[in-house]
Amino acid sequence: MRTEKTCEIISVGTELLLGQIDDTNATWLSEKMATLGLNVYHRQTIGDNRKRLYEAFKLAQSRSDLVIVTGGLGPTDDDLTRDAACDLFGCNLETDLFTMKKIEAYYENRGMNMTENNRKQALSFSGGTVFENEVGMAPGLCYQYDETVWYFLPGVPTEMKWIVDHRLIPDLYSRDFLQYQLYSRELNFQGIGESTIEHELIDLIRKQSNPTIAPLAGDGHVTIRLTAKSVSKEEADELLDSIQEQILSRVSIYYVGDRPNTLERQIIERLRNKNLTFSACESITGGLFASQIVSEPGASDAFQGSIVSYTNEIKENIVNVPIEILERYGAVSEECARSMAEKSRVLMNSDLSISFTGVAGDQSIDGHSSGTVFVAISSKEGSTICEKLTLIGKRNEIRNQATKRGLKIFLNYIKNNYPV
Amino acid sequence: MRTEKTCEIISVGTELLLGQIDDTNATWLSEKMATLGLNVYHRQTIGDNRKRLYEAFKLAQSRSDLVIVTGGLGPTDDDLTRDAACDLFGCNLETDLFTMKKIEAYYENRGMNMTENNRKQALSFSGGTVFENEVGMAPGLCYQYDETVWYFLPGVPTEMKWIVDHRLIPDLYSRDFLQYQLYSRELNFQGIGESTIEHELIDLIRKQSNPTIAPLAGDGHVTIRLTAKSVSKEEADELLDSIQEQILSRVSIYYVGDRPNTLERQIIERLRNKNLTFSACESITGGLFASQIVSEPGASDAFQGSIVSYTNEIKENIVNVPIEILERYGAVSEECARSMAEKSRVLMNSDLSISFTGVAGDQSIDGHSSGTVFVAISSKEGSTICEKLTLIGKRNEIRNQATKRGLKIFLNYIKNNYPV
Repeated sequence: MRTEKTCEIISVGTELLLGQIDDTNATWLSEKMATLGLNVYHRQTIGDNRKRLYEAFKLAQSRSDLVIVTGGLGPTDDDLTRDAACDLFGCNLETDLFTMKKIEAYYENRGMNMTENNRKQALSFSGGTVFENEVGMAPGLCYQYDETVWYFLPGVPTEMKWIVDHRLIPDLYSRDFLQYQLYSRELNFQGIGESTIEHELIDLIRKQSNPTIAPLAGDGHVTIRLTAKSVSKEEADELLDSIQEQILSRVSIYYVGDRPNTLERQIIERLRNKNLTFSACESITGGLFASQIVSEPGASDAFQGSIVSYTNEIKENIVNVPIEILERYGAVSEECARSMAEKSRVLMNSDLSISFTGVAGDQSIDGHSSGTVFVAISSKEGSTICEKLTLIGKRNEIRNQATKRGLKIFLNYIKNNYPV
Repeated sequence: MRTEKTCEIISVGTELLLGQIDDTNATWLSEKMATLGLNVYHRQTIGDNRKRLYEAFKLAQSRSDLVIVTGGLGPTDDDLTRDAACDLFGCNLETDLFTMKKIEAYYENRGMNMTENNRKQALSFSGGTVFENEVGMAPGLCYQYDETVWYFLPGVPTEMKWIVDHRLIPDLYSRDFLQYQLYSRELNFQGIGESTIEHELIDLIRKQSNPTIAPLAGDGHVTIRLTAKSVSKEEADELLDSIQEQILSRVSIYYVGDRPNTLERQIIERLRNKNLTFSACESITGGLFASQIVSEPGASDAFQGSIVSYTNEIKENIVNVPIEILERYGAVSEECARSMAEKSRVLMNSDLSISFTGVAGDQSIDGHSSGTVFVAISSKEGSTICEKLTLIGKRNEIRNQATKRGLKIFLNYIKNNYPV
């Protein structure tokens, strides 16, 4: 039996180190490699600097069987991944004719003038392999240096993912790198803290090997992820069933199932169980509350819809907020929020409705400064409530926070007014 | 004048290396440090393994003036950050009494039993500093080892950010680490490729130092980010004005301003310039289209609102989709999409309206399998159009793609029917 292969992921780009974009490529690659049973032990992020890239590559060469590098393969001067890799491999770059023709055809077909730097994208490692990219210009590159296999991929997520699925993974199979797969299962718990659940399971956790047992604290819940490494799903299921049984024999009263109890899910489940429906009326959140609810499978069991009333005309003419309220108190006011919740509930014939109005832009509205948000909830039986929030951040941070706080306020309202 | 300080960020957690969560902490910290004028040259991501953590810490110590470590400070057995750091520093851990009291009080107040492993969160480095965390349990830790200053922060984003803003940055000032700040400005271009714009500016880019000039290809546009390092905003503005002038003297005809021309922005601007309004009617996207539009400042100049009609009742009773259409063709059909667009446009009294209906869940609806989406657009003058999309992915991936594709289809419709 061969030893298990270790994988390292290197993300290249000064824009990453300046925090301009999230490194979602690294997350995606990590999950992909883990699922294939490879151990990702290290990730590095390095800027567009030839010396630092070389140092990072050298380190990866010394400790990993497989290295995936994303970014820095483009046409511009600060794309230095190829050069730094040549510094390590001691090889030359040569023009890949297939890629070169593709690039030339691209410019010719569009009647555009191809600038000299575009030729760079066709450069590949002498003695390496070129992975054609059917969804973009820059191909993937593969090179084996000593015992380590290197893959270089473009940083554009759609192109990177396509090459991994269609070229890199088949290449890994052909190299016999993939023997196992990982099979994961999540157990979710509520009403018990991460440290308490660990305390209950400490002996299992300490002697874990296959499956692994990883507790992870979430927003009001704890997830335990069980991961089995196995050659078949059947074998993995046996291993997972056995450890799941041992865990649940100790903490089953807190178990809520294989999906975490998100706020959205708790709202939907509690209302569904009581045969109640709900709707929303959104100004500042602009549909984000509805979208969050709909992101949860089974939302239609309780959620009917939302009116995104971004203008006063929609508030007045469709939601039926009285014009007197809009004129006297303004659209950003407790009075308007209450009316939006009440009127939208009646309009949509729901049992409950929640409304959002507030200021997310830089300018004050109705005397309220940016970050002021009113959240109101109306229900058939209970009295209407309204909370005023004072949030800090940029436009979309305020919209996100308002939505999250609204979900919490709504769940608490349901717990108080419709106890199980 | 002191030399510039280099900063390294180390993210700890096996969940990161398994790709279970995006490392948004690293992005946030990178941007924060860059804005403070610190050079972030390296980021590492390491799992919960004491030996590999120690190796990563040793490497950071050898090359960075300032190291920020997030994660691995919790109460459980796999929280090993403190231990690995002690291996490097050669110091001991001691209980911080203030934190210990806080943890004890937390459990006492809730009438809960405190398990032994919770004491771990109160452990700090002997000879180091403890940064109180006012929004959570685990404090931040600071330790100077030789010339390198180390900060250890909890992995929970809200707590990490609070400690950085309230404790870490003041500490950096007190150590005289912060001399400059970075001031950035973005120039956005459309109708010119990244390689062509670089070709036009190659001499400026090659001799860049302060400000730096970084081209970045986006979704249909190119952004050039200019970043000046300076002791005052006035000085930075002078530097930025000068380089901006040189750049625009060459490629001004492609310049669209300081914000990228996102699809949302182009839609809003084109309609605003023609005094046209638009609305939406969303089933499968559940408010996501509206939310994307509202994420753009100035959305209210053209966008009126959206009806999230998640049930057939809302489609029929509020949007006024004829019951015959719902009964004969089903809610997921070209006929329903067309009716949703037309009826919502009339209801909201808009010039244009776009609708979305489709299947995102696992089960087929109206004979359509998951990933089938109908997008329709209705306008006062033009004829109604409908496109059928076949998308691949999980529930929320399909919803995201449908929204993105809808934005593109809508913009093309506007370009064709309302040319500038």
